[in-house]
Amino acid sequence: MVTRDLNPHMRRELIRTLRRSLPAAAILHDPEALRAYECDGLSAYRELPMLVVLPETVEQVRAVLAACSERGIPVVARGAGTGLSGGALPNADGVLLSLAKLNRILEIDEHNRIARVQPGVRNLAISEAVAPLGLYYAPDPSSQIACSIGGNVAENAGGIHCLKYGLTVHNIQALTFLTPDGRLLAVGGGAPDSPGYDLLALLTGSEGLLGIIVEIVVKLLPRPERAQVALAAFDDAEKAGAAVAAIIAAGIVPAGLEMMDNLAIRAAEEYVHAGYPVDAAAILLCELDGMNEEVSEQILQVRRILTQCGAASVRTAQDERERLLFWAGRKAAFPAVGRLAPDYYCMDGTIPRRNLARVLVRISEMSASAGLRVANVFHAGDGNLHPLILYDASRPGDLERAEQLGARILELCVEVGGTITGEHGVGVEKIDQMCLQFSAPALTQFHALKHAFDPQGLLNPGKAIPTLRRCAEYGAMHVHGGKLHFPEIERF
Amino acid sequence: MVTRDLNPHMRRELIRTLRRSLPAAAILHDPEALRAYECDGLSAYRELPMLVVLPETVEQVRAVLAACSERGIPVVARGAGTGLSGGALPNADGVLLSLAKLNRILEIDEHNRIARVQPGVRNLAISEAVAPLGLYYAPDPSSQIACSIGGNVAENAGGIHCLKYGLTVHNIQALTFLTPDGRLLAVGGGAPDSPGYDLLALLTGSEGLLGIIVEIVVKLLPRPERAQVALAAFDDAEKAGAAVAAIIAAGIVPAGLEMMDNLAIRAAEEYVHAGYPVDAAAILLCELDGMNEEVSEQILQVRRILTQCGAASVRTAQDERERLLFWAGRKAAFPAVGRLAPDYYCMDGTIPRRNLARVLVRISEMSASAGLRVANVFHAGDGNLHPLILYDASRPGDLERAEQLGARILELCVEVGGTITGEHGVGVEKIDQMCLQFSAPALTQFHALKHAFDPQGLLNPGKAIPTLRRCAEYGAMHVHGGKLHFPEIERF
Repeated sequence: MVTRDLNPHMRRELIRTLRRSLPAAAILHDPEALRAYECDGLSAYRELPMLVVLPETVEQVRAVLAACSERGIPVVARGAGTGLSGGALPNADGVLLSLAKLNRILEIDEHNRIARVQPGVRNLAISEAVAPLGLYYAPDPSSQIACSIGGNVAENAGGIHCLKYGLTVHNIQALTFLTPDGRLLAVGGGAPDSPGYDLLALLTGSEGLLGIIVEIVVKLLPRPERAQVALAAFDDAEKAGAAVAAIIAAGIVPAGLEMMDNLAIRAAEEYVHAGYPVDAAAILLCELDGMNEEVSEQILQVRRILTQCGAASVRTAQDERERLLFWAGRKAAFPAVGRLAPDYYCMDGTIPRRNLARVLVRISEMSASAGLRVANVFHAGDGNLHPLILYDASRPGDLERAEQLGARILELCVEVGGTITGEHGVGVEKIDQMCLQFSAPALTQFHALKHAFDPQGLLNPGKAIPTLRRCAEYGAMHVHGGKLHFPEIERF
Repeated sequence: MVTRDLNPHMRRELIRTLRRSLPAAAILHDPEALRAYECDGLSAYRELPMLVVLPETVEQVRAVLAACSERGIPVVARGAGTGLSGGALPNADGVLLSLAKLNRILEIDEHNRIARVQPGVRNLAISEAVAPLGLYYAPDPSSQIACSIGGNVAENAGGIHCLKYGLTVHNIQALTFLTPDGRLLAVGGGAPDSPGYDLLALLTGSEGLLGIIVEIVVKLLPRPERAQVALAAFDDAEKAGAAVAAIIAAGIVPAGLEMMDNLAIRAAEEYVHAGYPVDAAAILLCELDGMNEEVSEQILQVRRILTQCGAASVRTAQDERERLLFWAGRKAAFPAVGRLAPDYYCMDGTIPRRNLARVLVRISEMSASAGLRVANVFHAGDGNLHPLILYDASRPGDLERAEQLGARILELCVEVGGTITGEHGVGVEKIDQMCLQFSAPALTQFHALKHAFDPQGLLNPGKAIPTLRRCAEYGAMHVHGGKLHFPEIERF
């Protein structure tokens, strides 16, 4: 296969310019080398970039941006490439800017419980580095072994523990980023509030559209004295949904509150032998952490609530080994479900907690009518769904059916008052559903905001925020379907 | 005194236009009526607006914005007018838009623990309305009896309990706001994360410069089962500062952790007889809340730490009456200190917690050399200082000296790695210090962002974000002083 060299002259000239600032090994243009960057975790979308650059210093990143900015060349930033919405999908006529080599932990400040890190540092590497101090970094996306903190910030990543400890935005304190024209801006600070507009929150989750993040100050937390988990089995998912609501209503904030349906339970059990009840319609995993006595008291309270809500059985992990085993099943759920079919498509939407049971029923109906199995794994405490759609890409039409089913599920999320992404971002995957989520005036405001940071529109073009034209077409399509409409003002 | 009628024709014409959409009683133009709006809580700055409008519906707000937008007339939004940085100071040639009559609680959703309210609703009125459900709204600025939730959002207000429960931005879930050209945008949502740029965080704390907030969805929390407070006396402020750090380092998150110096202690004790030790150099008030056993365990741990850090005495409130009394002293600290001199000026800066003792010493030196007494009241857990500068406005030069001393204190905050505002906002008061806090590229980005929301620059002009020209002048002034400089890149 050959590289599609859209503009060979521009490409050669850009390489010459970049070589003045970057070592030759930091500029990849060989098609085989580019291949490794053609997609992120959403492998259904692939594109070879014109060039890949791997700068090792902030000054080199600035040089890349300056060169691209002068020439009007798009730049797509990439962390570890574990994203699930195609946010790091390259542009064929653009530069893929890998931040993987900016991977140093610059400072650990035990006293103020912060660490200053470069964007390419792996999420788990932070917790490992500060473990001797009894500290850790709380957000734990399931890819945390591999994913980079810069990517976490770009996507505002979550994880099992974000119910209690918040998303990435709640666990970072400051950012340094480069604007496309090479200005280095520092935002956020040492205080809970900062004067000026909240650019820290604005950049977080902006999916690489507003600036290139080159340094991050993360907050560190003391490791809780103790963690304990309860595993409850239910013979019907509605009861499990009611239990979730009851736990939250009791004023308990679990460290994690996860739900799996029967297909996910069986897949996980076969894969890791976590001791799950394979006949249950749904299980809940409820983790409590904190000081010893606090956890003891809360676990009793949670057991009581689970039983009152009709759990068929409630087990508490007998020891740390069993606690980790209970979680191993949940954490392996995606690959476990992946063994049930040649391919699977992981969705990510949110719904108000009270609608959990109702949405599960609708998904099951949609699944039947599409002829595709769906396994459900939820961050139930947050109302964050991860339906896993099983399909076979080698069967004609299956991928399209899976994508359509995924889109319908997201539309259902919006319909019941939820959102089209809980933690995976919009990327290319959900850009059409943004038209359902947001009104035309809101999208217009998003474009104006983008323009204020990136007037040339060079950073990650075509991602995250759809054009109004695209929405008009998408909206029109759905009006024909007779159910959804393009919302003038959409509360979400 | 007469109104300065800068453009009587425009004013008459605007009134005629507004009368088509607003009841006559909602448009104030009589100088005596305007007088009540000439300042907010920062009464050193006063200005009569051209007009005051008091719309009662969102449609009326939209009509006001449309009329002003068409004519290029500035609009300053105002909640309850309790702000302390002059954020609601009127423009002489502009409209003062009071949101006081948009004061309805629209919906209380017990199940999802949210309330949908209009911006003019008082902070405390929300907690009162949901008290029968065992819920409350956490942020508690000391003006909470009077201040409005809209103003809280505009300033990202804090309070004693924000150490544990977060600032306003962490306690709201959605916003609806009007752009100056009358578009109604809904931002935020029911999920922890939202797709698209985080306009919810961006609008919060934007001091009325980006849009007019017309509806807010606030989060409600269950009332903690129990609260208990420890009062520790120290013979030197440095030990108190070390105790603050030690409590936080132990992994305890107090509901409140407040510090007062000797002058503040004596003033409060004389005023409310809270039982404070009047000879102490500093006291700490450390409140724990949560479930019964958790609080019992933590209060023991806190007492141990306070003693280890050299507290001369540690008392725990014997009952709820005494707990409230301990807090009554702290809550009355501002008016209590106010009795020590004809006037006082309340500052608001933040510093890294570790610098507490050092900053106290510096403030005391500055106070001596300025010949003005300073009482110190801190949200110590956050490193948020509230130095109260005592002066006598009737004594020539005293106000200027107080303002200069205040500015020096804010500069000191920036110097030690802190910020120029913890929770009161920038407004007109601290606009020059923004030049110390932010680099020219950052301010340029702020202006670009403002332009994306308010291209005509009509919303609250002259507040919060200084022009680069103003900073150049301010910076030059300081270069002459030989100590501070206009920072090219300022980490904060």
